[in-house]
This record gives sequence, C-alpha cells and structure tokens, in this order.
Amino acid sequence: MSGKKIVVVGGVAGGASAAACARRLSEAAEIVVLERGPHVSFANCGLPYFVGGEIPDRDDLLVQTPASLRARHNLDVRPHHTVVRIDRDAREVEVHDTAQDRTYREHYDALILATGAAPLIPPIPGIRRDGHFTVRSVPDVEAILSWIDARNARQAVVVGGGYIGLEMAEQLHRRGLQVAIAEALPQVMAPLDAEMAAWLHRELKSNGVALHLGSAVAAFENPREDETAKASVVVLNNGTRLPADVVILGLGVRPESQLARDAGLDLGERGGIRVDETLRTSDPHIWAVGDAIEVKDGVTGQNSLIPLAGPANRQGRIAAENIFGSSENYSKTWGTAIIRLLGLSAACTGANERMLRKLGRPVEAVYLHPYSHADYYPGAHRMAMKLLFDPASARLLGAQVVGKEGVDKRIDVLATALKAGFTAHDLADLELAYAPPFGSAKDPVNLAGMVAQHVLQGEVKNAQWYEIATLDSARAVVLDVREDSERTQGAIPHSLHIPLGQIRARMGELPRDREIIVHCQTGQRSYFACRILAQNGFSVRNLSGSYRTWEVATGE
Amino acid sequence: MSGKKIVVVGGVAGGASAAACARRLSEAAEIVVLERGPHVSFANCGLPYFVGGEIPDRDDLLVQTPASLRARHNLDVRPHHTVVRIDRDAREVEVHDTAQDRTYREHYDALILATGAAPLIPPIPGIRRDGHFTVRSVPDVEAILSWIDARNARQAVVVGGGYIGLEMAEQLHRRGLQVAIAEALPQVMAPLDAEMAAWLHRELKSNGVALHLGSAVAAFENPREDETAKASVVVLNNGTRLPADVVILGLGVRPESQLARDAGLDLGERGGIRVDETLRTSDPHIWAVGDAIEVKDGVTGQNSLIPLAGPANRQGRIAAENIFGSSENYSKTWGTAIIRLLGLSAACTGANERMLRKLGRPVEAVYLHPYSHADYYPGAHRMAMKLLFDPASARLLGAQVVGKEGVDKRIDVLATALKAGFTAHDLADLELAYAPPFGSAKDPVNLAGMVAQHVLQGEVKNAQWYEIATLDSARAVVLDVREDSERTQGAIPHSLHIPLGQIRARMGELPRDREIIVHCQTGQRSYFACRILAQNGFSVRNLSGSYRTWEVATGE
Repeated sequence: MSGKKIVVVGGVAGGASAAACARRLSEAAEIVVLERGPHVSFANCGLPYFVGGEIPDRDDLLVQTPASLRARHNLDVRPHHTVVRIDRDAREVEVHDTAQDRTYREHYDALILATGAAPLIPPIPGIRRDGHFTVRSVPDVEAILSWIDARNARQAVVVGGGYIGLEMAEQLHRRGLQVAIAEALPQVMAPLDAEMAAWLHRELKSNGVALHLGSAVAAFENPREDETAKASVVVLNNGTRLPADVVILGLGVRPESQLARDAGLDLGERGGIRVDETLRTSDPHIWAVGDAIEVKDGVTGQNSLIPLAGPANRQGRIAAENIFGSSENYSKTWGTAIIRLLGLSAACTGANERMLRKLGRPVEAVYLHPYSHADYYPGAHRMAMKLLFDPASARLLGAQVVGKEGVDKRIDVLATALKAGFTAHDLADLELAYAPPFGSAKDPVNLAGMVAQHVLQGEVKNAQWYEIATLDSARAVVLDVREDSERTQGAIPHSLHIPLGQIRARMGELPRDREIIVHCQTGQRSYFACRILAQNGFSVRNLSGSYRTWEVATGE
Repeated sequence: MSGKKIVVVGGVAGGASAAACARRLSEAAEIVVLERGPHVSFANCGLPYFVGGEIPDRDDLLVQTPASLRARHNLDVRPHHTVVRIDRDAREVEVHDTAQDRTYREHYDALILATGAAPLIPPIPGIRRDGHFTVRSVPDVEAILSWIDARNARQAVVVGGGYIGLEMAEQLHRRGLQVAIAEALPQVMAPLDAEMAAWLHRELKSNGVALHLGSAVAAFENPREDETAKASVVVLNNGTRLPADVVILGLGVRPESQLARDAGLDLGERGGIRVDETLRTSDPHIWAVGDAIEVKDGVTGQNSLIPLAGPANRQGRIAAENIFGSSENYSKTWGTAIIRLLGLSAACTGANERMLRKLGRPVEAVYLHPYSHADYYPGAHRMAMKLLFDPASARLLGAQVVGKEGVDKRIDVLATALKAGFTAHDLADLELAYAPPFGSAKDPVNLAGMVAQHVLQGEVKNAQWYEIATLDSARAVVLDVREDSERTQGAIPHSLHIPLGQIRARMGELPRDREIIVHCQTGQRSYFACRILAQNGFSVRNLSGSYRTWEVATGE
C-alpha cells in the first residue's frame, strides 16, 4: 500500500475528491493530478452566478489551488497538463505539458480517470464563431463577461433550455440583457414532465424572457442590413430570426471518454466509460469517476449519464478507498437535481412519467398544490408537486416539485424516501419537523403520500389534465366544485358548477348516465366531492391537481 | 358500516382530522364532535405568533368553524360541550352543554377520545393569579394581548424554556417587551443535548433576553415597595427576583386522560391513554388519538408522550379508517421537532445523547459545522449538527441541527433516514438536490454521514468537547491546526499550535509520549491532521466539532 503511485486525470470535482481522499488514506502514496485546464477544484456549478454578478469575485470560484492542495494534502497538481494516451501495458500515461509544450510519460500503479464531460456542439451551420460561448470553465465565463462588456451586448440568445441554459438565461436577465431561449423540445428542463416544466415557461415569460419552444436552431447567420447582432442571428427551424449580441450554447454535454476509448477500455451504451460497482474500469488498474462514466439508474435500472457534482464527489472518494483495498460500492443514481429560475425553484428525483411510460412501466401520477408552510402564517406559497408511484406496490418511482419556497426541502426528503424504497404509505406516515414558519402539520410530502393513498386504496379514481381536451360530452361532464369567486377567474369550458358545500343538497342536478370529472382549485375539495358522489351512486373521477394543474399545463 | 354513529371528544387537531376522515369514508355515518372550548380545528401552533403580531388577524387562527365543518363534511360540531363521563356499558357519553348549562347523554357506536393535553401548573406558591397565563387556546392569547395592552406591560417573565416558552419569549421580545426566561434545567429545549441548546442560549442573550438557567421558581410574590410588577415578582430558587408585568407559564403539558381513567380505560406508564397499534384503547369501541395517548418511540422503544400536531393529525385519520374496518397501524414516533428562535432554528429527530446514555445504549456522537449552502455563493451560514449513531451497526439513532438557514431541510432528511433505518454510510451516500443557492455538492447530511464514517472505519478516533476541561497534561496535549488569524480570535488554553499546512514539516515539535487532541475551527482540518499524524506514529484524536463546538459548549 505504501509508496503506491496514483495518477488522477482531471482535477475538478471527482478528480480532486479522489486525490484528497487518497492522501487521507496514505501519507506514503505519490499522488499526481493532471488537469488539462488552468484551474483545479473550481466551482463549476457557480459559473452562471459569476456571469450575473451574484458571485462578485472570480477568486470565489477557485475552491482550491495547486498550491493549497500541495500544502494541505501534499498533492502534485499540474494544471495545463493534458493526458494524450494511456499505455496500459506499461502502466504509463503520456502527458502533454501545454505551457512548456513538452511531452513526457508518467508511471502509475493506479489511474483514476476524472475526465468529465464536454459541451455538445452539434454541426449547425455557423455554430463556431466569435460571440458564441459554452459554459464549462472559469475562462469561459471570463470570456463571456469580457465580450458583453467590450461589445456592450444588449440581447442574448441562449440555445438550450437545460440547467446551464436556464441558469445563464436567469443571470443574463439579471445583468439587464434582453434574453431569448431557443429549445428544440416542446419544454425546458427535460428531466421534468411537460406540465411541470410549464410553471417555468410561465415564470420566464412573466419576467420578459422570450421563450421559443419546439424550435431547433437551423443556422447562425450574419445579420442582414436591417438587423443588429454583434454575435450572430440565430435562425430557428420555423424561420424566426433572433439577433444576438451574445450566444450561449447550452446544448448538453457528452462524456469525455475518448482517452478511455483510445486505450481500449469498455464504454457503455451511452458513450460513457463503463465501470463496475467499485468504479473500476475494464482494466483492473484503472478507475473512473464523475461525468465521464455511466451509472445505473435506481428506478429504471438503465445506464445513465449523470453529470452532477454531488455524485462525482462521492465517486471520487469511493474510487480512492477501493484503490487502497476497500470494496465500497457506488450505489445507484437517482437523478436528484434542482434549479432556481428567477422566482421559482424546480426539482426532481427518480424517473419522470415520460420515461416510465416509454419503458412500459406501470405508473400512477398524482398532482397536488400544498402550501410551503402553514397557510395561516405569513408568506406561505402554493407549490406544485407531482408524485409517481407503482400502482401495485405503492412504491415511489419519482417526484417533481416546483414553487417559490421549500422546494429543495421536499425534493430532498423525497430523494431520501426513494433511496429507502418507501411507498406512498410511508410518505403519508413520515414524521417531519413542524412549526408554522417551516411547514404544516401535514407536510406537503405527507399530503403527497395521502393523495396517492386515496387512489391506491380505491377511495377515488383520478382523471388527468390531458383527458379534458378530448372528453366526449355524451359520456362525461366536468363538474367544478369551487366557489363562485374562484370560478369567475377562469374555468374549464362547458363545466357544470356546484360549490362543495352545496353538493349534498344539489346532487339531483347531476347526470347519472355519464361520468363526472370533478375539479376544484387544487384537488382537495374535489376529492371530498368525489367521496360524497361516489357513495351516492354516481360515477366520478377526481381531476388530479384540478384547475391549477389543468390551467398551467394547457396554458401554453 | 352505514349509519354508524361516531362521537369524537375534542375538536382540534386529532379530533377534527378523525371526524373529517370518517365522513370521507362514510356519508351515512352520524358524526358528532364535542368540544369543550369555544373553537374547533384552530391553529394552536400559531398562537405565539398571534401574540407577537406576526399573525395579525385572530380569524387566521380559526382554520375551520362548526359551520364550515357542517357545510363541507356534514359534521355535527358542538363547541362548549364537555364530556363529563363515559358509560361504556351503555355506550353513551354524558355531555355538559356549558352554554345552556344542561346535561344530556349521547349514544355512540365508536368513540374517539381526542382530549389533548393540559398545561402543567405545578403547586408553586402564588402561581394562580391575574397576569399569569398559559398558552393553549385562542382565548388564552386574546387574554394575554388584552392584559398587555390594558396594563401597558413592559416586562415579561416566561417560566419554562420549552417550545411554548421560547416561542412566547421570542414573540414578546418582538412586541418590544423586556423578556426574562426562568428554566429549572441547566438548558432550554430539553430534547436537545446541552451543548446544542447552548447555541440558543447565546442567541437569546445576544438579543437581550435575560436567561436564568438552573433556576426553578420558588414563588410568585407581590412586588415590594421598591419593585414595579403589574403581575407578580417571580422569585427564583437562588433568591433572584424578576418583576413581571405579565407571566407566561410554559411548564409543559400533561395528557388529558382523566375522562379515560374515570371510565376504567388502561393508561400507560406516563399517564397517557394506552392504545394498541390501531389506536384502539382497552375498550374495543373506544379509540384515542393525539396528545392524550402514549406512543412507542422508534429509537428507544419506550412509551412516549408526543404532544405535536403532525402525529395527532395522522392518528386521527388512522383511527377513523380503523373504525371503518381498515387495520392501519400508527407507526412509531420519532420526536421530530423544530423551533425558530429569533435568528436561529433548532431541530431534532430521534433520541438525544443524554437519553441514550441513560438507557445504557451504545452510542457515538459526532459534531460538524457545515455551510447551509455552497460557501462560494452569497448568504451561506454555518450550521451546527450533531449526529448520534450506533458504533456497531452504524445505524442512525438521532440528530440535532441548529443554524440560521436550512435547518428544517436537514432535519427532515434525517427524520426520513431515521424512519428508513439508514446507517451513516447511507447518509454519506444520499443523492440530494444541489445547486449553489440550496446546498453543496456534499450536503451537510452527506458530510454528517462521512464524519461518522471516519470514526466507524477507524480512520480517526474522536475526542469530545467535555474531555478538554479535565485533560491530564502529563498524558495529553491539545494541538490547534488553525491559521494564526483564527487563533488570535480565541483558543483553547495551553494548546500547541501548528497550522495544518505546516504539520508535515513540523511534526518533530510534537510529543510522541503523549496523546495529541487535535482541533481546528470545525473539525475538518483537524481530521486531515489526525490522518497525517496517525500515519506517522503519533497517538491522536480529533476534537469533534473542534473549536466551534468547544467554544459554545463551554461558553456558558
């Protein structure tokens, strides 16, 4: 064990964690970190916030420096060093020192590949030009800021509505730029289902961010005479032309697995490096961690690419421990993630409904709109929650939460529940911390479990928002049980209306020969109404999430 | 099932939930709710915030009214009706209608006792007098506000430093009163261990709230000539006299089980009503829920009284379902709770160290002080966490968190983990949602698991803050590995000092014949130092929580 030589390729999240952990395990080991870029262990998740000025100082992004890592952990950290080849037989890497423009070989006893992921640059005409930027490194964001300042950029186009795209849109908006987002899919934030992403669409628009959904970019062109664009004109596939003084490319990432591929290591079906549960590659002397590897999804069992900092850090530590003789396993991944977008937060864990349906997995979805904390205490806001569970086993399969406050808390509880294999019953039963500033006696997570239980226990059948548009009026009617004042602010077309408090007295007005889809504002009163009507022999279903889900989902 | 008559005694959290749930299960049932007080289903957890003005409108506290419960759930709700006797043979309750001063009997098929808990009023001389108040109902807080306004009260004494006492202290402080707290124990918030409660002591003092710990009240007296006190002078057992214009008695509650006792129902060892897992009492026609019952603690297995709203609500629903033929079990209780106190929040779940030691349970404690979110993103604050786990199985036994931000999230994740039976390894492995405004790539919960793993895996041995005071200098030395600038702001007396970055070069200065207790500011750098020194043959232990825990714990 002592005297082992460990070479780490890549010095950011996973690589830096692996190296620091290796040193804690062995003072005697020689540990070399080879980083292609100028910085190691920088805060890549903070890059957008530096652009917007929320993080004012570039140095705040540099969590560690080669000097601090040497002082603290006795690591030999070499920025500007690119590994160009792995010689597995000799157990050596060939390294190009780009600062000195020299190449040398470095022996290893154990090699850790933490090569990360690279921004996707699809072959769209004109995509590579000045004023177009990806967001992956400190130099990237410095270049964006320089460009914006030097060109006095006023209008930005963000291509791609994923995490980086949305965070950059928010931060450029914060800087005062006019921002447009072009996204090829019909929604932003692909990990969310469309009707949950719709909350983000609304938030973007109400903040004056132009949103072009279902709009792939056909080309980046020079401005015509009547156009002003200091970077390019982003031409969408429907012909729309978006002049841009700066273009941010947020089209996703691909695992940086070329080095592994060239060395003949096994890759997975998604192009990431294949590792076993101990994070060892197909070469017993080589481990791999972070954005470059494929991991098993805990819900679907599929191989996934999870380019997130948390898993990368954990994988780094696990690889280091296994190199020193442990046999720690990296457990499955759950895709837990969160984004803040203007006044909203949106988060998810587990699988979404789109994916589960695609895989043919039995799934039931419920929506609810609970308050972030006791509604009698000031400052409570309704959030939107979607819970996905197995209708046979009641087991949680995924969850999505969007709202102004308390979103992070609920998704973390649900992520913990998912790892625990909890059912909807367990969620209803959770004992969470309650005081009026923080939650409710029935926390949103409890309520989500209860709403699922109502379905699981056969107390109510749900209808879904997308069924309303195609309802056959000969077979079904929509019944609104809200108060008059709520109905005047918007209603589902052709719906009947009896407030909940009058249901028992007025049920004679309702048809017995058709199904009744009942809704209120959020789904609770309509559930009560369903119980009353079902016990009186009516055929009823409850519109899950009710008017609030239907309105946002169809509002686009 | 149809036509069943259900009588519920008590119409607040558990009783109201039981009645509403019963109606959802049966439209045909006759459901009578008998409530002694003037209000049903009111927000008892909101009472202190009404006193402080954070909840401005009394009506905000009235979640439901008898009229709304009749309209929505067809419940026969009778406020001002006290049940004075249960005739189990006849299955009848004897009811006193206090408004009309008449007594009548009401038959039941199923009886639900949701009688709640009553404030403890120990027999301290002078305790019952004008200007002394408990906080249990809307009339209570209305009376407090009337008294304060009418008497122009300036100085308040809160007797008891539990939840209600602290919340009332905060809210009276917020109203501008001078507030003193008298607590018989050496700490506030008994569910926390003393060194975690110390953060609250500091917060109270720095906000100008006088704190008298270890100070039982000997008597409440009339003011002397040189004293001004519009309510009484609170005389502590050390002779201190605290003049009070208003006195809040927050001395805890006792289960209201007299009705059950008189009816010959079994009570538990703590005086609460004994129920089985389905919440049925020793009479098969009588169920009981809420503050009045005893439940099993999930960690210690002991019978507990948990006077909290969340469990009461869940119990109400479970009792109703079981009355209609389900066999739902109320799972164990975990004592998860939170309080906001001025600028801090403090929360706990599971058992505390004091209780575990008292029971002779093997337990290991670790402290840490992680940032609430990524420290490179503005507004991050360090929180204090204590994790308790079984040293053999690594299983989580309890957790305590105190801080400015994000406390509720971490305790809810830990409460979920506790219910799941998670180990420290599971906590380290949790995949939680990370973006810079919300957390860190290594969330505080992950870090807590990792810090515990370091001990479990034998990477480091911990020392605890209380060992420092009695350290034998012939056998052990304290080593501070912080930077010079940190040390000038306070240090452990007689400690050696070598900054972490110099440890490898200067370890020759350290004794090999004595144990070295290493500390830094929060315990992370000292852990690194321990690893270095242990691998070089030194006998070392890491001061868990380091200077930050030691300072607050001993600062009193």
